[in-house]
Parts: sequence; structure tokens; C-alpha cells
Amino acid sequence: MISAEAKARLKTYLDGRESGPGRIVDWILIGLIVYSIITLTIDTIPGIPPEATRFLRISEIVVTLIFTLEYGLRVYVAPQRLRYIFSFWGLIDLIAIAPFYITLGLGLAGIDMRGVRAFRLLRILRLLKLARYSRTLARFHRAFQLAREELAIYLLLTLILLFVAATGIYYFENPAQPEAFASIPHSLWWAMVTLTTVGYGDVYPITAGGRIFTFFVLMVGLGIVAVPTGLISSALSQVRREESDARLAQLVAEENAEGKGDG
Amino acid sequence: MISAEAKARLKTYLDGRESGPGRIVDWILIGLIVYSIITLTIDTIPGIPPEATRFLRISEIVVTLIFTLEYGLRVYVAPQRLRYIFSFWGLIDLIAIAPFYITLGLGLAGIDMRGVRAFRLLRILRLLKLARYSRTLARFHRAFQLAREELAIYLLLTLILLFVAATGIYYFENPAQPEAFASIPHSLWWAMVTLTTVGYGDVYPITAGGRIFTFFVLMVGLGIVAVPTGLISSALSQVRREESDARLAQLVAEENAEGKGDG
Amino acid sequence: MISAEAKARLKTYLDGRESGPGRIVDWILIGLIVYSIITLTIDTIPGIPPEATRFLRISEIVVTLIFTLEYGLRVYVAPQRLRYIFSFWGLIDLIAIAPFYITLGLGLAGIDMRGVRAFRLLRILRLLKLARYSRTLARFHRAFQLAREELAIYLLLTLILLFVAATGIYYFENPAQPEAFASIPHSLWWAMVTLTTVGYGDVYPITAGGRIFTFFVLMVGLGIVAVPTGLISSALSQVRREESDARLAQLVAEENAEGKGDG
Amino acid sequence: MISAEAKARLKTYLDGRESGPGRIVDWILIGLIVYSIITLTIDTIPGIPPEATRFLRISEIVVTLIFTLEYGLRVYVAPQRLRYIFSFWGLIDLIAIAPFYITLGLGLAGIDMRGVRAFRLLRILRLLKLARYSRTLARFHRAFQLAREELAIYLLLTLILLFVAATGIYYFENPAQPEAFASIPHSLWWAMVTLTTVGYGDVYPITAGGRIFTFFVLMVGLGIVAVPTGLISSALSQVRREESDARLAQLVAEENAEGKGDG
Repeated sequence: MISAEAKARLKTYLDGRESGPGRIVDWILIGLIVYSIITLTIDTIPGIPPEATRFLRISEIVVTLIFTLEYGLRVYVAPQRLRYIFSFWGLIDLIAIAPFYITLGLGLAGIDMRGVRAFRLLRILRLLKLARYSRTLARFHRAFQLAREELAIYLLLTLILLFVAATGIYYFENPAQPEAFASIPHSLWWAMVTLTTVGYGDVYPITAGGRIFTFFVLMVGLGIVAVPTGLISSALSQVRREESDARLAQLVAEENAEGKGDG
Repeated sequence: MISAEAKARLKTYLDGRESGPGRIVDWILIGLIVYSIITLTIDTIPGIPPEATRFLRISEIVVTLIFTLEYGLRVYVAPQRLRYIFSFWGLIDLIAIAPFYITLGLGLAGIDMRGVRAFRLLRILRLLKLARYSRTLARFHRAFQLAREELAIYLLLTLILLFVAATGIYYFENPAQPEAFASIPHSLWWAMVTLTTVGYGDVYPITAGGRIFTFFVLMVGLGIVAVPTGLISSALSQVRREESDARLAQLVAEENAEGKGDG
Repeated sequence: MISAEAKARLKTYLDGRESGPGRIVDWILIGLIVYSIITLTIDTIPGIPPEATRFLRISEIVVTLIFTLEYGLRVYVAPQRLRYIFSFWGLIDLIAIAPFYITLGLGLAGIDMRGVRAFRLLRILRLLKLARYSRTLARFHRAFQLAREELAIYLLLTLILLFVAATGIYYFENPAQPEAFASIPHSLWWAMVTLTTVGYGDVYPITAGGRIFTFFVLMVGLGIVAVPTGLISSALSQVRREESDARLAQLVAEENAEGKGDG
Repeated sequence: MISAEAKARLKTYLDGRESGPGRIVDWILIGLIVYSIITLTIDTIPGIPPEATRFLRISEIVVTLIFTLEYGLRVYVAPQRLRYIFSFWGLIDLIAIAPFYITLGLGLAGIDMRGVRAFRLLRILRLLKLARYSRTLARFHRAFQLAREELAIYLLLTLILLFVAATGIYYFENPAQPEAFASIPHSLWWAMVTLTTVGYGDVYPITAGGRIFTFFVLMVGLGIVAVPTGLISSALSQVRREESDARLAQLVAEENAEGKGDG
């Protein structure tokens, strides 16, 4: 339909990497995402007047149609369409509009699914695009890659610790509180709430044994909870050091090259 | 009215950077801030005897008049008056006295605004001046600047995470607890209280699905909460290293200069 | 009974270090551990139908027999049998099966001990084997070794802090809340829940003195709680740095060796 | 009375730095401290049988007499007696026994002061002596010294933040919850419990404005709470680096000295 040149220009606009029209398109889309999030959030509040609800629904239809148009254009201008559709950003773009059409279809079929509607809020993930081209995200990525294996082992240790804590507290507290610590899965809830130091206060040990056990679990557990902080911190330090070392090495190389040139 | 020399001396006193009278003025003002904070705090306690209230009011008037005089003098001695008025410290100095005159005006107009009166407590921000000339604050500033972009992206990630957590828990818990998880905004309150590990215990999931979802949210969320600690720690390390590298480079440069001088 | 060669091959299979059959045996055992954990967890839920209970019991018997066979084979193929039995992994393997036989024995003797049954869940510790050969675990181990003495002193400081906090709060709160702060041991529970920032909300100070005391305890206490994070982080950084220094030193040594060879 | 030599030997025993009798004296005293802590803790439990109470009282008298003897000997053998009495360890040693004699005196005067008795538990501070000669404590000390000014500024920032948070929440929540947020001091309790993420759940905002304000307070506040961790971590890293640099510098110096010797 349209020339290859127009297509390329359209792609540039949608990518939002260039100044001028592309930047404007970018900010309009960000504004729409934020607007859409706010309306969807308000929409879940019970007891809002029907006129407000009607306005929210209409504005939601308009916004989703714009996002659908954007998605269609992105697929259209992509050099490899399937690759875009199944890429991270392609899937996020689809998640942003799919719940609307699913609830529409279910609604026409007479099924009311509020839950699916809530998923429209996941279009907030599109805001991640704001950070797409930043050096920071690359540094994060590199730090996570460095600490990946360690984080996996930390996750394994955490799971083991949660089970050991749940087993122990079940043994101590089940006779005294058969409701709160009814089973190991119930005790797992306690273990998680305690070891993350959230401590809602809906379940807590009341026996002396359970409290002493909690002491030991927390002494060991907080150390394990502290490890990922240390890991990410340590990895980020290393990434920064590597960056400055690379800069230094480049400077030295340039100087040497000059020195040889002089010689 | 007064000579330029007297004006310059007055400025020196108010800045509090020099020993002698300036230092004394400085400590008197700090003492007045602390005294003023204490009286304003006591003033909000309900049921204090009327004589105490009267004394507190009078002492507040005296303290505010002194602060007003100080503010006037600072504006008077400033080389560029508007620049001082709209500077960070100028605004803080204004915040310290403005609520008094606003409540006075409102009181004369027959309006009682306790809220505005509480804002007088914001004069505690003036205590930040204690740290104004310290090397530490400069190091903090530099570390925050180094980690600025990263902290911004962390804030974006946190906001996205809060929304995703709120959407998910709303889906799981709303049918079981229509009061506590009445809407996405209500669920956002839960998400914030949980991910910061404050865990008041006013809202918490009770369904199995909601609890398993909470597990995943916390596993990912605590990692994100841990990142800023790592960022600031890593940035502070770098600032310290830069400082010691700069000292080292200076020493080497001095030695080389001596070496050449010898040659 | 069997040849030394067959024994060696069996050992290789059980160790799971080689690709092929050994790897398959490894994954089957991991699958059985996970399956066993899930069934044991479900088994503690009250009110599950009797058929489900029967199925769970039978599958538990089968799994434990397989683990017993595995344990027997491991003891059989071990070069030094006693050494394996009293090694860390040998004890874990025993813990995984012992509770089954103990409850069986107690059951035959007419004693019902649900608590001992729960201990079967400790076979989750066998999952630690997943991380046995990873470089990460070695790094963890080295970091903990570096920070060992510091962690011990932190533990001592924490214990002292807990006692000081409990003593103080008992003094302030016992007269006002004789139930919640009935004794120093009761106050220790409060001290632990507060200083780890879990904050269940079952006990908290209500007097002005107790609250001001809590402020000071938290100001000092959070610093102490923060120290182990710093310790482990700092130790992990050092381990990483040592590793990269060692690599660098090796590279330099190789280059020098080449240089000499050329000369 | 006794010879200077015997006095010196006695001092060596009490200091516990040498192997042999001194080490034994040291461990006996540590054991007595631990025993004394346990008995004093048990003593506060209400409803223990009178015989147990009598036994605890007698053993407390014996232990305190031993500690008094030890204190007397320490004062006796100290080269400068007043200096020891007012030293850190001298004061701790006095705190360990003084409450006993104070309660005795008050008891004879017919006054029952349970509070003072609880202070005997502070003799747990004597356990700090365990860490007296460790290199770790020196490293801690150096790290705290490095981060001292920064920690002071962090404390100032925390205090300012607490006041700003309390002022703000008082403004938002006082009309809705006049009991829980009765005054700024009451709100300060909320601010502290929230910013340290303890979150007992005794006070929490219920208005939309108060909750949104809490969000901003936590976003800024957790960053400030995270700073000391970063500071101590960063300082400990630097201390470790300085130590290894010093070792390296020594090695290089030794090598150079050898090199010159060869030349």
C-alpha cells in the first residue's frame, strides 16, 4: 500500500528514538498509558456514579483502539513480523490490549469476568519502555547476569529455609494453635511473612518452644535474606569497576598508539 | 542606613562560618529552632492546662519574631536579594515563619486552621544547615548524582511492581474480602505496606491463591527493594575510591615534579 | 558380591557427576524428593479424604524404600563407610529416612507421634546437593569464612542488645502491661520481634517511656542488624576481587614466561 | 600486704590474657555471668514456686559477692586506681554489682524497687570483654570511625524525616482518628514504627490522603534507612582494602630492600 520509505519513517516514529515527530508520538503513547492506568484503577472503586462509569468505559474503548492501531502498525512495519510478535515488547503490547477484547467476547457470550478486566492494568509494563535505551538498564542486566547463579542458589536456600521453618513451627505451635498452624502449608505462610520481616500479625507463635525456634530461624534467615542485597550490590560494584577499567585501558592503548606514532 | 562594612560584618555573623560572634549567633538560632520544635510539639497534645498553652503561645510569638528579624536581615544583607529569597535556604527560612502569619491572618478572619499551624514544625528543616559545610554532605550529593539515573529507574520499577501486585491481589482477594480489597487503590495500599515489609496487619491475603501470589511478589519485590541500598552503597564506595585515587594522583604528580626538578 | 568395576560404576551413577545414566539417576532422585515433600506437606492438611490419605501413605512407603535402597548403596560403594555415614551428606541422607522408621516403630508400639513424622520434611535439605558442585557455593563458603569471626561478634552483640532491650522495656512496660511484658523472657520476645523489624503487633509499648526507649533501641539496633549485610557484601566483594586478581596474576605470569622464552 | 610480684601475677590472672590459671579464671567469670543472667531472667517470671525464688536469691547473693570480690581485686591491682574505676570496663564492672547493693539498701529502708533489680541484667555487658582483644572489634572500630561523621548526619536526617512525617500524618489523620493520632508526639510513634518497617499495626493511616502521604514518606525514608547499611558496608570494605594494601606495600618494600642489597 505505502512506499518502503514511508514505512521506514513510520517505524522511526513508533520507535521514538529520534527527536521530532517520533519523540512526540512517544510521549503521547506514554500519556495514554498513564491516563489508561488511572481510569482503570478508578473503575474498580465500588459506588462511583453511573455517568462516571460510562465515561470511563468510553475513554477505555478509545484508548484501546489507539493501542490496537499502534500494535497493528508495529506489526506492519516490523522487518520480521513473527519475531516482533513473540518478542518481549511485542508480547507486552499484546497484553496491553488483549484483555479488552477477551472481556468483550466474554461479555457478548453473557459471561462477566471482572478478573480479566483487571489484567488490562498490566499495560503498565509498557512503561518499562521508558528505560529501554538507558545505560542503567544495561548495567542492571549485566549485574543480574553476574549474580544469576548466586541468586538461583539463594532462591533454593530460601525455599529450603521456608520449609524447615514451617516444619519446625508446625511441630511447636500446632498443638497450641490448631487453627492458625493447621498444617504445613499454613505454617509456610507464617514462615514467609516472618522471614521477609513483613510480620502482619495474623499468625505468630505463642508457645515458649515456638518463640525460641523463631529466634533461631530469624538469626539464620535474616542472613540469607541479606545475601541477595550483598550479591546485587557486589555485582553492581564490579560492573562499575569493569566500566572504568575498560575506559582506562582504552586511554592507555590510545596513548601507546600515539607514543609509537611519535617514535 | 548602615555602612557597607557593617553590612558585610552582619552577613558574616548570620552565615555562622567564622568563629567568634558568628558562631554564637549560629548556636543561639539552633537552640531557638530546637526550643521552638519542642514547644510546637507539646502544643498539639490535647488536654494540657490553659496556662501552659498561654505560655507556649507567647514563647512562639517571641521565637517567630526573632526568626522574622533574622529573615529580614538575611534578605537585607544578601548581595542579590531575589536570588536569596528563592534559594533553597531562603525558602526554608520563609517556611519557618510563614505558617505563623498565615494562621494569624486566618485567625483574625475567624477561621481556625490547626493544620496550617502544624506546618510550623517544618522549621526543623533549618537544622539541615548544621550539615551545610560538611564534606559528608558533598560526598552524599556526589553519590546520589552517580546513582541518580539508577534510582529513577528503580522508582519506575517499584511503581510498576506496586501496580502489578495490586492488580493481582485484587483479582485473588476481592471475592473473599470485598471490604479490605474493595478496589485497586485499596489493593495498592496493601501492596505498599507489604513490599516495604512494614506489614501493619490491617489488610492481608486469606485465600490460598492470594498467599501464593504474595510469595512471588515478595521474592521479586524484596530484590527490587534491595537494589537502592546496593546502588547507594556502590556509589558511596566509588566516591571514596575516587577521593583516594585523586589524593594518590596528586602525590605522584608532586613526586614527579620533584624528580624533574632534581634532574 | 559384585566386581570392583561394577561398584565403581555404581558410585559414579550415584554421585551424578557424569553425563548419561548418572545424570538420569540424579534427576530421578531430585524428582522423588520434590514429590515426597509435596505429599508430606499435603498429608498435614486436616480434613483430606481418607482415600487420599491412604494413597499418600502408600506413596510415602514406596519413596522411603527407594531412599533407603539409595542410602544402602551409597554406604556400600563408599571407600570409607564410616566416614560417609558421619559426613554432612551422609547425615542428611539418614535424616531423610530415619523419621519414617522411627514413627513406624513408635506406631507399632502404640504411640502416635505426628511431630516426628513432620521431620521427614527435612529431606528437603537433600536439595542442597543441587548446589554441591557449583562455584557459587565455594564463593559463599569463602565469604562466610572471611566474615566468620565478625559474624560471631555480631551474634554476641545482638544477644547483648536483645537482653539490654528486654531489660529496659520490662522496666518501662511491666507496670502498665503486666500481661504482655510479664517477665524478662516475655520481653525478650518483644525485643526480638522489634529488632528484626518483624513487628507482629502482639506486644508493643504503650507508655511514653517505653516508646522513647524503643526509639533508642531501634536507632542502635538497626545499625547492628545492618552490619551482617555489610559484612557478607564486603566479603563477597573481596572474594570476587581475589578471583579476578588471581586470573590477572596468572595472565601476567604467562606473558612474562613467554617474554623470557623470546629473549 | 602482699608483695608487688604477687600483685602483678594476680593482675595477669584477672586480665585473662595468658594461658594457664588466667584463662581458667576468665572462663569461670564468663560462666558466672551467663549463670547470673539466666537466674535473674527466671527470677522475673511471675508465679514461680517460693523455694525456687529462695534458691535464686541465695545464688544471686553468692554470685554478686564473687563479682564484688573481683571488682575489689581489680581496683586493688590497678596501677592507677581512679583511672580503672572510671574506665569503660571499670564502669561496666560496677554496673554489674551496684544494683544489688542499691536494692539491698532500698529493701532495708522498706522500699521495694523491682526496676532497679532488673538493672542487674546489665552485667551482660561484661560479655563484651569476650571480644576485647579480637582484630574484628578493631576493624569495626575503624569502620565506625571512618563513617562517624556520615552516621551523625544520617541521624540528623532521620530525626528531621521523623518530624516531617509526624507533622504530615498528624495533619491528615488527626481529624479521622483523634485517638491514635492525638498529637505530634503520638504521630512520632507512628513515624518511627513505620520508617523502621517494624509496623506493629497499632496505628496506621486510614484516610486516602494519609496513605498517599505514607507512600511518599516510605519512598524517601527507606532510602535514608538504607544509607547507614551502605555506609558501614562501604567503610568495612575500605578498612579491608587498606589492610591488604598495607600488607602489599610491606611486601614491595621488603623486595626493594633485597633488590638494593643484591645491587
